[in-house]
Amino acid sequence: MKIAIAGSGALGSGFGYMLKKGGHDVTLMDFWEEHIQTVQEEGLTIDFNGQTENVGITMDKPENIEGKFDVIFIFTKSMGLRGMLEAIDHTISEDTKVICLLNGLGHADTLSEYVPAENIIMGTTVWTAGLDAPGTVHLMGEGPVEVQEVAPEGKEATLEMVKVMKDSGLNGVYSSDVHFTTWRKACVNGTMNALSALLDANIEELFESEQTKAVVKEIIAEFALAAKLDGVELDVDDIMTYVVNLSEKVGPHYPSMHQDIANRRPTEIDFLNGIVAEMCEANGYSAPNCRLITQLIHAKEEILGIA
Amino acid sequence: MKIAIAGSGALGSGFGYMLKKGGHDVTLMDFWEEHIQTVQEEGLTIDFNGQTENVGITMDKPENIEGKFDVIFIFTKSMGLRGMLEAIDHTISEDTKVICLLNGLGHADTLSEYVPAENIIMGTTVWTAGLDAPGTVHLMGEGPVEVQEVAPEGKEATLEMVKVMKDSGLNGVYSSDVHFTTWRKACVNGTMNALSALLDANIEELFESEQTKAVVKEIIAEFALAAKLDGVELDVDDIMTYVVNLSEKVGPHYPSMHQDIANRRPTEIDFLNGIVAEMCEANGYSAPNCRLITQLIHAKEEILGIA
Repeated sequence: MKIAIAGSGALGSGFGYMLKKGGHDVTLMDFWEEHIQTVQEEGLTIDFNGQTENVGITMDKPENIEGKFDVIFIFTKSMGLRGMLEAIDHTISEDTKVICLLNGLGHADTLSEYVPAENIIMGTTVWTAGLDAPGTVHLMGEGPVEVQEVAPEGKEATLEMVKVMKDSGLNGVYSSDVHFTTWRKACVNGTMNALSALLDANIEELFESEQTKAVVKEIIAEFALAAKLDGVELDVDDIMTYVVNLSEKVGPHYPSMHQDIANRRPTEIDFLNGIVAEMCEANGYSAPNCRLITQLIHAKEEILGIA
Repeated sequence: MKIAIAGSGALGSGFGYMLKKGGHDVTLMDFWEEHIQTVQEEGLTIDFNGQTENVGITMDKPENIEGKFDVIFIFTKSMGLRGMLEAIDHTISEDTKVICLLNGLGHADTLSEYVPAENIIMGTTVWTAGLDAPGTVHLMGEGPVEVQEVAPEGKEATLEMVKVMKDSGLNGVYSSDVHFTTWRKACVNGTMNALSALLDANIEELFESEQTKAVVKEIIAEFALAAKLDGVELDVDDIMTYVVNLSEKVGPHYPSMHQDIANRRPTEIDFLNGIVAEMCEANGYSAPNCRLITQLIHAKEEILGIA
């Protein structure tokens, strides 16, 4: 299968590596020159759950890529989705399936402007990854990747992609309610990502603190309020248990928002806690924890001179 | 005049130095062995607004101090006030004036358990200071120190102490409403101190960020609500202007709460944002910014293993 990864940072490179190992024709696409050049010249160096390997893999900027793909996985940051879709438009045929595994909320609407609904597959994953240097990434965890079609006609293709991911060791799982898992994932990112960035602590350190756990629960309650406005029921205690269990699995990991701050890149806070605060406020509620956390992360960005 | 400093960290040592230079018989009291030993053996090294000097000055633990003092300045942390009063009780005569320049709220009540009301002088100062190493401190700024008697009988002594401070270069000022200045000072500490600790930024960096300034204003609004419950009117815009002007004066300084976190010491957050959140909540209001900031600072303390 001819597969492209659009946005080949930590997670994208990791997925590309696994899919290539699974026997597919994989192309990594990204905009970061130094990263691309390193992969082109020295291959991709990847630590997968503690085992390091160096593999040759095609990588280039979207503008240098010719031909159409059977499948494109999108792994941009939330704020980069539209720009990436513009850049890869020439690689999308009327049959190309586009799998969106982005963090954050509201992306299906953006995708539907570029891709027919029957070709859009939405999903979430709890694989964690980090970009340690240009050309060097690590991928940790055991998944899963939960996916679901947006339009009923897309179900068959979605099931096929589940199999592709399963066969490539990516633990693909068909979800009958990806809208729910997207919100649940947003709860994960809106708690551990935001607090890790703000408190400069890894997930293990965060969840050893009772104070942090109290804040996590209050944030989840605000996400549940916004989710309800979006037609999704989140049980606060269930989600709390899910987040705590997940924290125990990923332990000493620094999530992406912490990495963003450390590497002086803009964070996705507006597509997580920010959107939750806005949804609540637009409907006459308030979400003061999400609001303040969004402000504090932006303050941190401003202080560090992140545009 | 026989003057003691009870709690001779950064600010206490700085005041002791200035008062000694002003011609007074000054004794520094503290509990930190290494700091005491350094001052006893090598003198106090102090950088006062950029000029460094080393001076011999009496310093010891309260238990080793004999005799009574004319005046005792208290410079403990909020949570150390009661313990210090117990420790220095034997140095307080029925004529000893006790000047309390602590940050935070609610200290006059604690003092009145140990000192007759007519001998209590409450005050605030915007001198800033840092303890760079045992025996080495810096003092920055130009004051003022605003003080007022608690009981009418104490006015004469208070005016005398204003003169003592003025003559020693400490910019003593008689305040006709120290209750107001205490709240205003609490607004300073509840904004720049807490945010500096949380965002790991100095005051200049904080106030270059528009996001930070928005948060500062929201915190001040919550302090104003609590102050009103305490009988003090704070105009949010006036206090905001005061805080911003002050930030421009102290610029690249890291306030005490940042130093506490950096040095793994408990912060005073409970006596600032914490007490504001509690006062509001006890009266049917909410102060979500103060509440979350208190939780986040405590989370940071827990993560760093600060008891």
